Amino acid sequence: MTVSIRSFTKRGPGIVFIVSAPSGAGKTTLTREVLSSHPEMSLSVSCTTRAPREGETPGKDYHFVSETVFERRRAAGDFAEWAEVHGKLYGTPRRLLERRLRRGHDVLLDIDVQGARQIREHFASAVAIFVLPPSLDELRRRLAGRGTDAWKTIEQRWRNARHEIQEIRGYDYFIVNRDVDEAVKRLAAIIEAERLKVCRYIRKPK
Amino acid sequence: MTVSIRSFTKRGPGIVFIVSAPSGAGKTTLTREVLSSHPEMSLSVSCTTRAPREGETPGKDYHFVSETVFERRRAAGDFAEWAEVHGKLYGTPRRLLERRLRRGHDVLLDIDVQGARQIREHFASAVAIFVLPPSLDELRRRLAGRGTDAWKTIEQRWRNARHEIQEIRGYDYFIVNRDVDEAVKRLAAIIEAERLKVCRYIRKPK
Repeated sequence: MTVSIRSFTKRGPGIVFIVSAPSGAGKTTLTREVLSSHPEMSLSVSCTTRAPREGETPGKDYHFVSETVFERRRAAGDFAEWAEVHGKLYGTPRRLLERRLRRGHDVLLDIDVQGARQIREHFASAVAIFVLPPSLDELRRRLAGRGTDAWKTIEQRWRNARHEIQEIRGYDYFIVNRDVDEAVKRLAAIIEAERLKVCRYIRKPK
Repeated sequence: MTVSIRSFTKRGPGIVFIVSAPSGAGKTTLTREVLSSHPEMSLSVSCTTRAPREGETPGKDYHFVSETVFERRRAAGDFAEWAEVHGKLYGTPRRLLERRLRRGHDVLLDIDVQGARQIREHFASAVAIFVLPPSLDELRRRLAGRGTDAWKTIEQRWRNARHEIQEIRGYDYFIVNRDVDEAVKRLAAIIEAERLKVCRYIRKPK
Protein backbone atom coordinates (compact mmCIF):
# COMPACT_ATOMS: atom_id res chain seq x y z
CA MET A 1 0.00 0.00 0.00
CA THR A 2 1.25 3.46 -0.86
CA VAL A 3 1.89 5.81 2.04
CA SER A 4 0.47 9.29 1.51
CA ILE A 5 1.31 12.44 3.45
CA ARG A 6 -2.40 12.75 4.17
CA SER A 7 -2.23 9.70 6.48
CA PHE A 8 -0.16 11.83 8.86
CA THR A 9 -2.19 15.03 8.77
CA LYS A 10 -5.40 13.62 10.21
CA ARG A 11 -5.91 12.82 13.89
CA GLY A 12 -4.52 9.44 14.91
CA PRO A 13 -6.21 6.97 17.24
CA GLY A 14 -6.56 7.76 20.95
CA ILE A 15 -3.59 6.87 23.14
CA VAL A 16 -3.68 5.52 26.71
CA PHE A 17 -1.08 7.23 28.90
CA ILE A 18 -0.48 5.42 32.21
CA VAL A 19 1.13 7.43 35.00
CA SER A 20 2.26 5.53 38.10
CA ALA A 21 4.31 6.60 41.07
CA PRO A 22 4.94 5.66 44.67
CA SER A 23 2.89 7.63 47.17
CA GLY A 24 4.59 11.00 47.76
CA ALA A 25 6.38 11.26 44.41
CA GLY A 26 4.11 14.15 43.38
CA LYS A 27 2.05 12.41 40.72
CA THR A 28 -1.26 14.17 41.46
CA THR A 29 0.16 17.69 41.03
CA LEU A 30 2.00 16.59 37.90
CA THR A 31 -1.01 15.05 36.16
CA ARG A 32 -3.28 17.95 37.16
CA GLU A 33 -0.87 20.47 35.61
CA VAL A 34 -0.52 18.49 32.40
CA LEU A 35 -4.27 18.03 32.05
CA SER A 36 -4.86 21.76 32.44
CA SER A 37 -2.47 22.48 29.54
CA HIS A 38 -3.86 19.60 27.43
CA PRO A 39 -7.64 20.21 27.31
CA GLU A 40 -7.97 17.67 24.46
CA MET A 41 -6.84 14.92 26.86
CA SER A 42 -9.05 13.50 29.56
CA LEU A 43 -8.41 11.84 32.89
CA SER A 44 -10.04 8.52 33.61
CA VAL A 45 -11.86 8.82 36.95
CA SER A 46 -11.37 5.61 38.95
CA CYS A 47 -13.86 3.87 41.21
CA THR A 48 -12.63 3.28 44.74
CA THR A 49 -13.84 1.80 48.01
CA ARG A 50 -11.74 4.17 50.08
CA ALA A 51 -13.36 7.14 51.84
CA PRO A 52 -13.09 10.61 50.25
CA ARG A 53 -10.23 12.76 51.62
CA GLU A 54 -10.71 16.40 52.44
CA GLY A 55 -11.01 18.48 49.27
CA GLU A 56 -11.86 15.54 47.00
CA THR A 57 -14.93 15.83 44.80
CA PRO A 58 -16.96 12.66 44.06
CA GLY A 59 -17.13 12.05 40.29
CA LYS A 60 -14.15 14.31 39.68
CA ASP A 61 -11.35 12.83 41.79
CA TYR A 62 -12.93 9.39 42.24
CA HIS A 63 -16.25 7.61 42.05
CA PHE A 64 -16.64 6.57 45.68
CA VAL A 65 -18.47 3.24 45.90
CA SER A 66 -19.17 0.54 48.47
CA GLU A 67 -17.35 -2.79 48.39
CA THR A 68 -20.58 -4.49 47.30
CA VAL A 69 -20.98 -2.18 44.30
CA PHE A 70 -17.29 -2.51 43.41
CA GLU A 71 -17.39 -6.31 43.51
CA ARG A 72 -20.56 -6.44 41.43
CA ARG A 73 -19.04 -4.21 38.74
CA ARG A 74 -15.77 -6.12 38.80
CA ALA A 75 -17.60 -9.45 38.36
CA ALA A 76 -19.50 -7.95 35.42
CA GLY A 77 -16.20 -7.05 33.68
CA ASP A 78 -16.85 -3.34 34.03
CA PHE A 79 -13.21 -2.53 34.88
CA ALA A 80 -10.37 -2.29 32.37
CA GLU A 81 -8.05 -2.83 35.36
CA TRP A 82 -8.48 -3.08 39.10
CA ALA A 83 -6.14 -3.35 42.07
CA GLU A 84 -6.02 -3.49 45.83
CA VAL A 85 -3.77 -0.79 47.29
CA HIS A 86 -3.25 -0.36 51.04
CA GLY A 87 -6.36 -2.51 51.64
CA LYS A 88 -8.70 -0.49 49.38
CA LEU A 89 -10.00 -1.34 45.91
CA TYR A 90 -9.48 0.82 42.81
CA GLY A 91 -10.78 0.25 39.27
CA THR A 92 -10.86 1.96 35.85
CA PRO A 93 -14.34 2.00 34.21
CA ARG A 94 -13.89 0.22 30.88
CA ARG A 95 -16.73 1.50 28.73
CA LEU A 96 -15.97 5.24 28.92
CA LEU A 97 -12.26 4.58 28.33
CA GLU A 98 -12.94 2.56 25.18
CA ARG A 99 -15.44 5.09 23.86
CA ARG A 100 -12.94 7.95 24.22
CA LEU A 101 -10.18 6.00 22.47
CA ARG A 102 -12.49 5.08 19.60
CA ARG A 103 -13.24 8.77 19.13
CA GLY A 104 -9.52 9.52 18.93
CA HIS A 105 -9.20 11.11 22.37
CA ASP A 106 -6.13 10.44 24.49
CA VAL A 107 -6.81 9.31 28.05
CA LEU A 108 -4.58 9.60 31.09
CA LEU A 109 -4.77 6.82 33.68
CA ASP A 110 -3.43 7.58 37.15
CA ILE A 111 -3.05 3.97 38.32
CA ASP A 112 -0.74 1.74 40.32
CA VAL A 113 1.77 -0.83 39.12
CA GLN A 114 -0.71 -3.75 39.28
CA GLY A 115 -3.27 -1.90 37.18
CA ALA A 116 -0.62 -0.77 34.72
CA ARG A 117 0.25 -4.39 33.97
CA GLN A 118 -3.41 -5.24 33.21
CA ILE A 119 -3.86 -2.21 30.95
CA ARG A 120 -0.74 -3.06 28.95
CA GLU A 121 -2.08 -6.56 28.35
CA HIS A 122 -5.29 -5.21 26.83
CA PHE A 123 -4.00 -2.03 25.20
CA ALA A 124 -0.71 -3.01 23.59
CA SER A 125 -0.01 0.53 22.38
CA ALA A 126 -0.50 2.12 25.83
CA VAL A 127 2.36 4.31 27.03
CA ALA A 128 3.52 3.75 30.62
CA ILE A 129 5.32 6.49 32.56
CA PHE A 130 6.81 6.04 36.02
CA VAL A 131 7.33 9.08 38.24
CA LEU A 132 10.28 8.83 40.64
CA PRO A 133 11.15 10.97 43.64
CA PRO A 134 14.70 12.43 43.51
CA SER A 135 15.75 9.94 46.23
CA LEU A 136 14.26 7.66 48.90
CA ASP A 137 15.36 10.10 51.61
CA GLU A 138 13.53 12.92 49.88
CA LEU A 139 10.46 10.68 49.53
CA ARG A 140 10.42 10.06 53.26
CA ARG A 141 10.66 13.80 53.91
CA ARG A 142 7.76 14.47 51.54
CA LEU A 143 5.58 11.75 53.09
CA ALA A 144 6.27 13.07 56.60
CA GLY A 145 5.83 16.69 55.46
CA ARG A 146 2.22 16.12 54.43
CA GLY A 147 1.39 16.07 58.14
CA THR A 148 -1.80 14.09 57.53
CA ASP A 149 -0.58 10.56 58.16
CA ALA A 150 0.49 8.62 61.23
CA TRP A 151 4.14 7.62 61.56
CA LYS A 152 3.24 3.98 60.93
CA THR A 153 1.43 4.86 57.68
CA ILE A 154 4.40 6.89 56.51
CA GLU A 155 6.81 4.03 57.20
CA GLN A 156 4.53 1.57 55.37
CA ARG A 157 4.19 3.84 52.32
CA TRP A 158 7.93 4.36 52.23
CA ARG A 159 8.62 0.61 52.35
CA ASN A 160 6.01 0.00 49.64
CA ALA A 161 7.68 2.66 47.49
CA ARG A 162 10.94 0.72 47.52
CA HIS A 163 9.13 -2.33 46.11
CA GLU A 164 7.05 -0.37 43.61
CA ILE A 165 10.14 1.25 42.13
CA GLN A 166 11.32 -2.23 41.05
CA GLU A 167 8.31 -2.34 38.72
CA ILE A 168 9.75 0.47 36.61
CA ARG A 169 11.25 -2.23 34.37
CA GLY A 170 7.81 -2.73 32.84
CA TYR A 171 7.45 0.99 32.02
CA ASP A 172 8.40 2.92 28.89
CA TYR A 173 9.47 6.23 30.41
CA PHE A 174 10.62 7.64 33.74
CA ILE A 175 10.40 11.16 35.12
CA VAL A 176 12.45 12.13 38.17
CA ASN A 177 10.24 14.68 39.93
CA ARG A 178 12.83 17.06 41.38
CA ASP A 179 11.11 20.26 40.24
CA VAL A 180 7.40 20.31 39.28
CA ASP A 181 7.75 22.64 36.28
CA GLU A 182 10.54 20.54 34.84
CA ALA A 183 8.58 17.32 35.41
CA VAL A 184 5.48 18.81 33.72
CA LYS A 185 7.60 19.79 30.71
CA ARG A 186 8.95 16.26 30.48
CA LEU A 187 5.54 14.64 30.66
CA ALA A 188 4.30 17.03 27.96
CA ALA A 189 7.30 16.09 25.76
CA ILE A 190 6.49 12.38 26.13
CA ILE A 191 2.85 13.01 25.16
CA GLU A 192 3.88 15.07 22.14
CA ALA A 193 6.50 12.55 20.96
CA GLU A 194 4.14 9.58 21.30
CA ARG A 195 1.62 11.36 19.09
CA LEU A 196 4.31 11.60 16.40
CA LYS A 197 5.05 7.87 16.20
CA VAL A 198 4.79 6.53 12.67
CA CYS A 199 3.38 3.19 13.90
CA ARG A 200 0.27 4.97 15.24
CA TYR A 201 -0.63 6.02 11.71
CA ILE A 202 0.58 3.25 9.41
CA ARG A 203 1.65 -0.35 9.86
CA LYS A 204 5.36 -1.14 10.17
CA PRO A 205 7.06 -3.49 7.68
CA LYS A 206 7.94 -6.97 8.92
CA MET B 1 19.19 -6.93 40.21
CA THR B 2 17.66 -4.17 42.28
CA VAL B 3 16.75 -0.97 40.46
CA SER B 4 17.84 2.16 42.28
CA ILE B 5 16.69 5.73 41.66
CA ARG B 6 20.34 6.63 41.18
CA SER B 7 20.40 4.67 37.89
CA PHE B 8 18.09 7.33 36.45
CA THR B 9 19.80 10.43 37.78
CA LYS B 10 23.09 9.99 35.96
CA ARG B 11 23.61 10.65 32.27
CA GLY B 12 22.55 7.78 30.03
CA PRO B 13 24.44 6.57 26.96
CA GLY B 14 24.62 8.75 23.85
CA ILE B 15 21.72 8.46 21.42
CA VAL B 16 21.86 8.58 17.61
CA PHE B 17 19.08 10.73 16.16
CA ILE B 18 18.60 10.24 12.42
CA VAL B 19 16.74 12.98 10.57
CA SER B 20 15.76 12.29 6.97
CA ALA B 21 13.55 14.20 4.58
CA PRO B 22 12.95 14.62 0.89
CA SER B 23 14.76 17.58 -0.66
CA GLY B 24 12.72 20.74 0.02
CA ALA B 25 10.98 19.56 3.20
CA GLY B 26 12.99 22.05 5.27
CA LYS B 27 15.26 19.64 7.12
CA THR B 28 18.36 21.86 7.15
CA THR B 29 16.63 24.81 8.85
CA LEU B 30 14.96 22.45 11.31
CA THR B 31 18.14 20.65 12.40
CA ARG B 32 20.10 23.93 12.59
CA GLU B 33 17.49 25.43 14.94
CA VAL B 34 17.38 22.37 17.17
CA LEU B 35 21.17 22.17 17.39
CA SER B 36 21.39 25.82 18.45
CA SER B 37 18.99 25.15 21.35
CA HIS B 38 20.71 21.83 22.25
CA PRO B 39 24.39 22.71 22.66
CA GLU B 40 25.01 19.33 24.35
CA MET B 41 24.12 17.60 21.07
CA SER B 42 26.40 17.53 18.07
CA LEU B 43 25.85 17.17 14.35
CA SER B 44 27.78 14.52 12.48
CA VAL B 45 29.47 16.25 9.53
CA SER B 46 29.26 13.99 6.47
CA CYS B 47 31.86 13.49 3.77
CA THR B 48 30.61 14.16 0.24
CA THR B 49 31.89 14.12 -3.30
CA ARG B 50 29.54 16.90 -4.40
CA ALA B 51 30.83 20.45 -4.86
CA PRO B 52 30.25 23.03 -2.10
CA ARG B 53 27.19 25.23 -2.60
CA GLU B 54 27.27 28.95 -1.98
CA GLY B 55 27.41 29.70 1.73
CA GLU B 56 28.60 26.22 2.74
CA THR B 57 31.69 25.98 4.94
CA PRO B 58 34.02 22.97 4.49
CA GLY B 59 34.34 21.01 7.74
CA LYS B 60 31.16 22.56 9.11
CA ASP B 61 28.48 21.72 6.56
CA TYR B 62 30.38 18.87 4.88
CA HIS B 63 33.86 17.48 4.44
CA PHE B 64 34.26 17.92 0.69
CA VAL B 65 36.40 15.12 -0.73
CA SER B 66 37.31 13.67 -4.12
CA GLU B 67 35.83 10.40 -5.33
CA THR B 68 39.22 8.72 -4.90
CA VAL B 69 39.46 9.76 -1.25
CA PHE B 70 35.84 8.77 -0.61
CA GLU B 71 36.30 5.31 -2.15
CA ARG B 72 39.50 4.70 -0.22
CA ARG B 73 37.85 5.60 3.10
CA ARG B 74 34.78 3.55 2.28
CA ALA B 75 36.90 0.49 1.44
CA ALA B 76 38.73 0.95 4.77
CA GLY B 77 35.39 0.80 6.67
CA ASP B 78 35.66 4.43 7.74
CA PHE B 79 31.97 5.14 7.20
CA ALA B 80 29.16 4.15 9.57
CA GLU B 81 26.85 4.54 6.55
CA TRP B 82 27.23 5.77 3.00
CA ALA B 83 24.86 6.41 0.13
CA GLU B 84 24.67 7.69 -3.43
CA VAL B 85 22.15 10.50 -3.81
CA HIS B 86 21.53 12.26 -7.14
CA GLY B 87 24.82 10.81 -8.45
CA LYS B 88 26.98 12.05 -5.54
CA LEU B 89 28.43 10.07 -2.62
CA TYR B 90 27.76 10.85 1.06
CA GLY B 91 29.19 9.12 4.14
CA THR B 92 29.18 9.42 7.95
CA PRO B 93 32.66 9.16 9.55
CA ARG B 94 32.46 6.22 11.93
CA ARG B 95 35.20 6.89 14.47
CA LEU B 96 34.10 10.34 15.68
CA LEU B 97 30.48 9.15 15.92
CA GLU B 98 31.39 6.17 18.09
CA ARG B 99 33.67 8.23 20.32
CA ARG B 100 30.91 10.76 21.00
CA LEU B 101 28.38 8.05 21.84
CA ARG B 102 30.81 6.32 24.20
CA ARG B 103 31.20 9.64 26.04
CA GLY B 104 27.42 9.90 26.44
CA HIS B 105 26.90 12.63 23.83
CA ASP B 106 23.89 12.51 21.56
CA VAL B 107 24.59 12.87 17.86
CA LEU B 108 22.29 14.07 15.11
CA LEU B 109 22.70 12.50 11.66
CA ASP B 110 21.24 14.37 8.72
CA ILE B 111 21.19 11.45 6.27
CA ASP B 112 19.07 9.93 3.53
CA VAL B 113 16.82 6.85 3.64
CA GLN B 114 19.57 4.47 2.43
CA GLY B 115 21.99 5.62 5.12
CA ALA B 116 19.29 5.48 7.79
CA ARG B 117 18.78 1.79 7.10
CA GLN B 118 22.51 1.07 7.55
CA ILE B 119 22.72 3.05 10.80
CA ARG B 120 19.73 1.23 12.27
CA GLU B 121 21.40 -2.08 11.53
CA HIS B 122 24.49 -1.12 13.52
CA PHE B 123 22.95 1.09 16.20
CA ALA B 124 19.78 -0.74 17.26
CA SER B 125 18.76 2.00 19.68
CA ALA B 126 19.05 4.80 17.09
CA VAL B 127 15.97 7.00 16.74
CA ALA B 128 14.81 7.72 13.20
CA ILE B 129 12.72 10.80 12.37
CA PHE B 130 11.22 11.55 8.98
CA VAL B 131 10.37 15.14 8.05
CA LEU B 132 7.42 15.52 5.68
CA PRO B 133 6.29 18.54 3.68
CA PRO B 134 2.63 19.49 4.29
CA SER B 135 1.76 18.14 0.82
CA LEU B 136 3.41 17.18 -2.46
CA ASP B 137 2.02 20.34 -4.10
CA GLU B 138 3.60 22.44 -1.38
CA LEU B 139 6.88 20.56 -1.84
CA ARG B 140 6.92 21.39 -5.54
CA ARG B 141 6.30 25.07 -4.74
CA ARG B 142 9.17 25.08 -2.24
CA LEU B 143 11.56 23.37 -4.65
CA ALA B 144 10.68 25.83 -7.41
CA GLY B 145 10.80 28.76 -4.98
CA ARG B 146 14.48 28.23 -4.18
CA GLY B 147 15.20 29.64 -7.62
CA THR B 148 18.59 27.90 -7.75
CA ASP B 149 17.71 24.77 -9.70
CA ALA B 150 16.77 24.06 -13.28
CA TRP B 151 13.22 22.91 -14.02
CA LYS B 152 14.48 19.40 -14.82
CA THR B 153 16.26 19.14 -11.44
CA ILE B 154 13.12 20.28 -9.61
CA GLU B 155 11.01 17.68 -11.39
CA GLN B 156 13.53 14.93 -10.59
CA ARG B 157 13.71 15.89 -6.89
CA TRP B 158 9.95 15.99 -6.68
CA ARG B 159 9.62 12.54 -8.23
CA ASN B 160 12.32 11.19 -5.89
CA ALA B 161 10.45 12.66 -2.93
CA ARG B 162 7.39 10.58 -3.75
CA HIS B 163 9.50 7.42 -3.57
CA GLU B 164 11.45 8.48 -0.47
CA ILE B 165 8.24 9.10 1.47
CA GLN B 166 7.43 5.38 1.12
CA GLU B 167 10.48 4.67 3.29
CA ILE B 168 8.80 6.35 6.28
CA ARG B 169 7.60 2.88 7.32
CA GLY B 170 11.08 2.16 8.64
CA TYR B 171 11.13 5.32 10.78
CA ASP B 172 10.06 5.85 14.40
CA TYR B 173 8.66 9.37 14.20
CA PHE B 174 7.31 11.80 11.61
CA ILE B 175 7.17 15.59 11.67
CA VAL B 176 4.98 17.44 9.17
CA ASN B 177 6.91 20.66 8.54
CA ARG B 178 4.09 23.14 8.04
CA ASP B 179 5.50 25.82 10.34
CA VAL B 180 9.19 25.88 11.31
CA ASP B 181 8.68 26.86 14.98
CA GLU B 182 6.14 24.10 15.47
CA ALA B 183 8.38 21.55 13.75
CA VAL B 184 11.35 22.59 15.92
CA LYS B 185 9.24 22.15 19.07
CA ARG B 186 8.23 18.68 17.92
CA LEU B 187 11.77 17.57 17.20
CA ALA B 188 12.82 18.88 20.64
CA ALA B 189 9.99 16.90 22.26
CA ILE B 190 11.12 13.70 20.53
CA ILE B 191 14.70 14.26 21.74
CA GLU B 192 13.53 14.94 25.30
CA ALA B 193 11.20 11.93 25.39
CA GLU B 194 13.81 9.53 24.00
CA ARG B 195 16.19 10.59 26.76
CA LEU B 196 13.54 9.54 29.29
CA LYS B 197 13.17 5.96 28.06
CA VAL B 198 13.62 3.42 30.84
CA CYS B 199 15.31 0.94 28.47
CA ARG B 200 18.20 3.37 27.94
CA TYR B 201 19.08 3.10 31.65
CA ILE B 202 18.17 -0.43 32.71
CA ARG B 203 17.46 -3.70 30.94
CA LYS B 204 13.83 -4.66 30.30
CA PRO B 205 12.38 -7.90 31.70
CA LYS B 206 11.85 -10.75 29.22
